[in-house]
Amino acid sequence: MKHNALHMTLLLDYYGELLTEKQKTCFDLYYNQDLSLGEIAEEAGISRQGVHDTLSKAEQALLDFEQKLGCVARENRLQQLLQTISAAAQELEGTPQAERILDAVRKIKE
Amino acid sequence: MKHNALHMTLLLDYYGELLTEKQKTCFDLYYNQDLSLGEIAEEAGISRQGVHDTLSKAEQALLDFEQKLGCVARENRLQQLLQTISAAAQELEGTPQAERILDAVRKIKE
Repeated sequence: MKHNALHMTLLLDYYGELLTEKQKTCFDLYYNQDLSLGEIAEEAGISRQGVHDTLSKAEQALLDFEQKLGCVARENRLQQLLQTISAAAQELEGTPQAERILDAVRKIKE
Repeated sequence: MKHNALHMTLLLDYYGELLTEKQKTCFDLYYNQDLSLGEIAEEAGISRQGVHDTLSKAEQALLDFEQKLGCVARENRLQQLLQTISAAAQELEGTPQAERILDAVRKIKE
């Protein structure tokens, strides 16, 4: 089930606020804290099947948000282009312009 | 009612896909095509009050999405910092590095 954990946690970073509290909690325990379905069931006081269903719905919701809004894809592309800008600015190191550019790139990445 | 049209159309650009078809249509007719509530009511075959309620719900939904996800605020900040990068790169015009930087900025803005 946990076949694309990195992508899922990225999606959670972007769209987590749009999930229900219960979905968010299950998702965090499963993907970030690496608890098993059984452990989450015990912690949340629901059945193992209930945890499984909650996680499935949350995953589908996150994938739908990304399909509709595309924030993660846009962010990945942005990071690549910022990398291009940083590399070019570093070749101009020592100029005040390069410093301003690298400073702006840092602020964008924050 | 149409007190912050520019902000609303920006929100629609980002989060429109999360609205219902009916909300999206009313919103577009009102904010982008500048039809009156009465004209939209006639076009959609619903009451003027129905259009008003649909628009209010859509506006609230868009504001909620922005409060939770902050895409528009992040985009505004990104545009400012890209402006800083462009200005600095233009001072270095003629160097191949500046060309690479300006090209990357153009691609980000697309």
